[in-house]
Amino acid sequence: MNSNSKLKLINDPIYGFITIPNPLIFKLIEHPYFQRLRRISQMGMSYLVYPGAHHTRFHHALGAMSLMQKAVHVLRLKNVEISQEEEEALCIAILLHDVGHGPFSHAMEHSIVESVSHEYISLLFMEELNRQFDNKLTLAIAIFKNEYERKFLHQLISGQLDMDRLDYLRRDSFYTGVQEGSVNAQRLIAMLNVYRDTLVVEEKGIYSVEKFIIARRFMYWQVYLHKTGIVAEQLLMNLLKRAKELTHKGIELPASEALRFFLNMTITKDNFNKDVLDTFSKLDDYDIVSAMKAWASHEDFVLRNISEMLLSRDLLKIKIKKKPFASNKIKEKREALSKKYQLTEAEAAYFIFEGEIENLAYRMDKDAIYLFTKSGKLVDVAKASDQLNLKALSKTVVKYYLCYPKPKY
Amino acid sequence: MNSNSKLKLINDPIYGFITIPNPLIFKLIEHPYFQRLRRISQMGMSYLVYPGAHHTRFHHALGAMSLMQKAVHVLRLKNVEISQEEEEALCIAILLHDVGHGPFSHAMEHSIVESVSHEYISLLFMEELNRQFDNKLTLAIAIFKNEYERKFLHQLISGQLDMDRLDYLRRDSFYTGVQEGSVNAQRLIAMLNVYRDTLVVEEKGIYSVEKFIIARRFMYWQVYLHKTGIVAEQLLMNLLKRAKELTHKGIELPASEALRFFLNMTITKDNFNKDVLDTFSKLDDYDIVSAMKAWASHEDFVLRNISEMLLSRDLLKIKIKKKPFASNKIKEKREALSKKYQLTEAEAAYFIFEGEIENLAYRMDKDAIYLFTKSGKLVDVAKASDQLNLKALSKTVVKYYLCYPKPKY
Amino acid sequence: MNSNSKLKLINDPIYGFITIPNPLIFKLIEHPYFQRLRRISQMGMSYLVYPGAHHTRFHHALGAMSLMQKAVHVLRLKNVEISQEEEEALCIAILLHDVGHGPFSHAMEHSIVESVSHEYISLLFMEELNRQFDNKLTLAIAIFKNEYERKFLHQLISGQLDMDRLDYLRRDSFYTGVQEGSVNAQRLIAMLNVYRDTLVVEEKGIYSVEKFIIARRFMYWQVYLHKTGIVAEQLLMNLLKRAKELTHKGIELPASEALRFFLNMTITKDNFNKDVLDTFSKLDDYDIVSAMKAWASHEDFVLRNISEMLLSRDLLKIKIKKKPFASNKIKEKREALSKKYQLTEAEAAYFIFEGEIENLAYRMDKDAIYLFTKSGKLVDVAKASDQLNLKALSKTVVKYYLCYPKPKY
Amino acid sequence: MNSNSKLKLINDPIYGFITIPNPLIFKLIEHPYFQRLRRISQMGMSYLVYPGAHHTRFHHALGAMSLMQKAVHVLRLKNVEISQEEEEALCIAILLHDVGHGPFSHAMEHSIVESVSHEYISLLFMEELNRQFDNKLTLAIAIFKNEYERKFLHQLISGQLDMDRLDYLRRDSFYTGVQEGSVNAQRLIAMLNVYRDTLVVEEKGIYSVEKFIIARRFMYWQVYLHKTGIVAEQLLMNLLKRAKELTHKGIELPASEALRFFLNMTITKDNFNKDVLDTFSKLDDYDIVSAMKAWASHEDFVLRNISEMLLSRDLLKIKIKKKPFASNKIKEKREALSKKYQLTEAEAAYFIFEGEIENLAYRMDKDAIYLFTKSGKLVDVAKASDQLNLKALSKTVVKYYLCYPKPKY
Repeated sequence: MNSNSKLKLINDPIYGFITIPNPLIFKLIEHPYFQRLRRISQMGMSYLVYPGAHHTRFHHALGAMSLMQKAVHVLRLKNVEISQEEEEALCIAILLHDVGHGPFSHAMEHSIVESVSHEYISLLFMEELNRQFDNKLTLAIAIFKNEYERKFLHQLISGQLDMDRLDYLRRDSFYTGVQEGSVNAQRLIAMLNVYRDTLVVEEKGIYSVEKFIIARRFMYWQVYLHKTGIVAEQLLMNLLKRAKELTHKGIELPASEALRFFLNMTITKDNFNKDVLDTFSKLDDYDIVSAMKAWASHEDFVLRNISEMLLSRDLLKIKIKKKPFASNKIKEKREALSKKYQLTEAEAAYFIFEGEIENLAYRMDKDAIYLFTKSGKLVDVAKASDQLNLKALSKTVVKYYLCYPKPKY
Repeated sequence: MNSNSKLKLINDPIYGFITIPNPLIFKLIEHPYFQRLRRISQMGMSYLVYPGAHHTRFHHALGAMSLMQKAVHVLRLKNVEISQEEEEALCIAILLHDVGHGPFSHAMEHSIVESVSHEYISLLFMEELNRQFDNKLTLAIAIFKNEYERKFLHQLISGQLDMDRLDYLRRDSFYTGVQEGSVNAQRLIAMLNVYRDTLVVEEKGIYSVEKFIIARRFMYWQVYLHKTGIVAEQLLMNLLKRAKELTHKGIELPASEALRFFLNMTITKDNFNKDVLDTFSKLDDYDIVSAMKAWASHEDFVLRNISEMLLSRDLLKIKIKKKPFASNKIKEKREALSKKYQLTEAEAAYFIFEGEIENLAYRMDKDAIYLFTKSGKLVDVAKASDQLNLKALSKTVVKYYLCYPKPKY
Repeated sequence: MNSNSKLKLINDPIYGFITIPNPLIFKLIEHPYFQRLRRISQMGMSYLVYPGAHHTRFHHALGAMSLMQKAVHVLRLKNVEISQEEEEALCIAILLHDVGHGPFSHAMEHSIVESVSHEYISLLFMEELNRQFDNKLTLAIAIFKNEYERKFLHQLISGQLDMDRLDYLRRDSFYTGVQEGSVNAQRLIAMLNVYRDTLVVEEKGIYSVEKFIIARRFMYWQVYLHKTGIVAEQLLMNLLKRAKELTHKGIELPASEALRFFLNMTITKDNFNKDVLDTFSKLDDYDIVSAMKAWASHEDFVLRNISEMLLSRDLLKIKIKKKPFASNKIKEKREALSKKYQLTEAEAAYFIFEGEIENLAYRMDKDAIYLFTKSGKLVDVAKASDQLNLKALSKTVVKYYLCYPKPKY
Repeated sequence: MNSNSKLKLINDPIYGFITIPNPLIFKLIEHPYFQRLRRISQMGMSYLVYPGAHHTRFHHALGAMSLMQKAVHVLRLKNVEISQEEEEALCIAILLHDVGHGPFSHAMEHSIVESVSHEYISLLFMEELNRQFDNKLTLAIAIFKNEYERKFLHQLISGQLDMDRLDYLRRDSFYTGVQEGSVNAQRLIAMLNVYRDTLVVEEKGIYSVEKFIIARRFMYWQVYLHKTGIVAEQLLMNLLKRAKELTHKGIELPASEALRFFLNMTITKDNFNKDVLDTFSKLDDYDIVSAMKAWASHEDFVLRNISEMLLSRDLLKIKIKKKPFASNKIKEKREALSKKYQLTEAEAAYFIFEGEIENLAYRMDKDAIYLFTKSGKLVDVAKASDQLNLKALSKTVVKYYLCYPKPKY
């Protein structure tokens, strides 16, 4: 009987099993920094629209690592040399690429902290883990920061066809039940290759790449930018903004210790030290929802009502247009609400507000997806796809929305 | 253009779409009592074993309602008369059958309240909703309580082949990725019929029923009674027991208002009044996990360590046997731990404890699954299945477990 | 116990079950004309590329009927009145829409018969069945011919979003394993509605329609017009052309009675009488493959070699370009082959030939897919989709291919 | 750019892709002996019951080879040494294990040839291929014949948990749409290990093995031994028996050259030489169905009627019981039919006949499935599974059937 201690398997409804390749990675997964991701929803509050979408950053990170193992396997079959060290580093980098996400994933970057991106915080976590694990993450960090000489390795972590995207599109499609957004990760990976240190797609993969770009665009407009989802996300940000505002006025709100810290402090890149990192590592979706539940009976009109709306999924109405909304209309609506409930105009603006959503389906130029033709050339997929007009998809589309209360208010 | 306002669709990864059949049911779904189920995990802490298993009671209830609509459709095709009122009542009853579940589903019934089953609390909620909705739930309640004359309707809600089981087995199998537990709900429903007011399965469905019983047994031993899942569930119950103990000693623990109420009070069926119900309706997984996060830095050894274990998934070890464990062995282990950390024996027992798990794959006799043979007889499926020996599966299997700390403690 | 004789279920890996709605349709399915479709491959010889693609016209016709039942169900929920008679007629029309297909589906229309489309032959079969079934197919035929007053019913049978396409794209994608071509038939059907007797898609369905058009385009270029598939289909047509040629020269080839009839005769619409129809009804894939197997040892170089190529999947090479091939190059190749094997140039042309393939992803104008906007207008989806540029997809794309023998010849 | 010529991928709806591991195997797949399997239905005439079940031996063989690659990968991860040569041999052996199947798979073994099993013919093909390929198949043949020293390699080819079974159960379940028969090949393979040269399953896999045995049993009773399927298979055998009978009487029937050879000759192991093998290699489903189509208008009552029945799926009726049918009843029925159509009793027996079907769900003893316990013992799964009573499943179940014409005859 041979030892099988190395073969740790995790059940995954999408890939069947996810294999944990070695003990170091197993320990990273066991680390509380990573376990915290079990309590961070992958799709924010999208479960208010798609009740199946309760999957977590934890699961996505494992899934992306699983695809990375497959990509390495395929590239090696095609005689692309990737060393054991590089493979481990790729797995670690993709595993930890999202470890810096705050509660509900994206909503926090502009409310809990001031313009500190989750990628930046991920890097802080990696560096701290590197200290704890005897510098065994050094290569992973170099690849993550694109400071390693073999550039295609970074492209597997972060690019228009990276393992992150392949997993989240597949996974989000799976859990929401929106089949149209499903991408065939296996086929795309099977068509990867490397040419002059650049990740490329073999020419016959052109339709699969087109299909991937269209599926991604579909997911954006239909799921990630779903009307109800936008309302929920904006309300969540407004809720935290209001909580900060009240806190800064000296009103002490019920909140967990970690949340209270971030409500009190103004955290930027400059003061994001080890203590801040540790406090951040204690913050997750549960702090926010629990606060919301306490705030639903708070005396502040704004705090109370937004909390109730989110808890009971009794949200604002929303309109979406291709042109901005007239500012006098918004002003009128705010005045009416202010009058009815004796609110200041700033307070009314928590319930009546406009905003933009935008999506770029495909980015041309330096970071393009390149096809490798049989005649040995690299061609931007947007140029190779003569009919589908991917060029049209490489323009950012902007839409405008207006949120306002339901008639009953 | 015809109005389609009635056709409310919800995306579901399993059935494609779930249709909300009418405005009353739509309002029940919108009610905060039901929306709360979005915050109750269907499988307790099983996500510590199966990272995909974050689906909720909310989703399961909708899924079961969707199967109910299919069952009604099939039975009507077979000339079983079911009135519009009965169909609505069936949908309401199955929708609300789990509305009384506390946080993490099953763990609470013996810690938050004293032997008040979730079915009992579901009934309290239904009765309260009946008051709020002008007695429109009267028939649903009668069917739920099995007080309605047509008994087969109750069997669709609660029986060995009810829509609850068909959905949860399918759904839990789907989200865990444990394909072996998947049941073919569509085929089983297609084979239902009614004979003398009893729900029966047509004879040719015998192998499907056998398969269903085996799949259910599989899910029990492999998933619901998974070793790690048992440890997590027991630790969760111990945590709440300890919290109650400390509270009753006068130590005020950080907790949400609703959770504090239940830590303070001893709630039984007798004092479960409207106020208790309203407080209960504010309790969900988020109260528990948030408390756990606060307690992870509490000075009480027991409270702190169990909280940390659950949050970091750094749990106890467990052994499972077919015979009970020797009590002197347990005592020895407790004494060693007590000594090492200066704990009382009662405190040590929070970390070293035994217990039983049991499962009955199939229940014969009065509540059996009946096959309707071509010769016009009803036969208990356990008797019809001559080879598989379902009779053997109709004996309760009991196993014994012992939990104790990892060596590092 | 109620009779369930009406509920005939057929297992289907895609939809779970297909229900046969009534006895008349059951009898039509049992009729030898329809049973013949069990022996007609849905995707011609595509199984030489996709080994799973052995599904039949029989299965597709049942699948399309199943989708039709779902479409009728959805439209009725939206208060579109469809009578029992109309529903039955829709089911019959879609069930029989392909009954006129010859062996290997499309390859025969220009070899077995002279420019008689399979739709025309389907109609002949329907009319004959109408005679056999006491004119019970009259309404179905009217809808099929678009002579019935309610035009949207015909659109469900034949249009850019008909049940035929929804099933074959889904089914071909399923059996080939080309997931990218999968369409979400259920979602598209859920978004159908009728406005002024026109089948429309509700506005929110725009991305699903876009996705459907892209998926269909994908299937064309990747599957239906796959290089190897083109070679096989062209060789099959050449084989039959050669067989006809030899037969007309007086050489009697081994062939089934039905095949011999069509090799001997020149059948056009004008002489396609009841006898021809009956003989046609005896012709299927098995006649062709069996002939091929006999011809693989025939003395005629052309007949023998093409037969062997198809049986052993040892096909011609193919090149595909956006411009036509130079005719002198083709001539040169033919001359070389002629010389090597002492063939006439016409004989060499059986192995060296050019051709065009074309695809129109979306057809604008009168037969467009219309979105019904919230403001109550009909908009061609190609105009509504401002970014994806579906207009570009409404131009026919033509490509040119050249087939020629492998070097070993 | 690195060469990827080695990575030949075949689309498979079940596993996504099947990889052809090396040029030798690619050539074996291209060989006409193997290409013939494209024309042999995997499930005989089961498509008369399950219209999706048109998959072929060709596809199954590729699928089983794909699972073999996965099994080798898993075992190597567990430090079981398997050399490159052994891996190639395993792939070849599993690829060719069914190459000796005749038309419609099983029906031919007792009609076309006299008690020559398909395994025996597979071996003849392998030996011939070994000659053609410079003895490169020697190791594969040794493993196939269980003459190689490492016995567990043979068990992967042929045993109760071999790659053949894992693929066909999964594949047949997939194409029929009978989800209950689906086995989780990936999970079972993940639990394989080798102990003292014996293929074993790790202890925690017990429920998966149980599930596998039950699923297999389900497929037998529900699919492989489906009533209509039995009728079709028996009629097919009777048809060939009758054809042989008539041929031996000197009546020349329309038939392909290869079929005529086997109708004329009595082939046993003793006279199965290279010429017979070559003729056998030209025989497939198409010969049989084409003959059937010609025979449907033959003057012989038996030949004509059975042919028509099979072509129009207008089959005999069948009754199944646990006890044999009374012989006088059968005699009476035959006499009545004989009288009505002026048949001899032997001729009537082609339409009225009895038979047995049997299934052994699990075989104990020397060829058992062994669990490897944590305490280092091998236990027969039937003994380890204390509750499910697999022992009961290790008894052969026999049922009796009686076929007879529909009343209209």
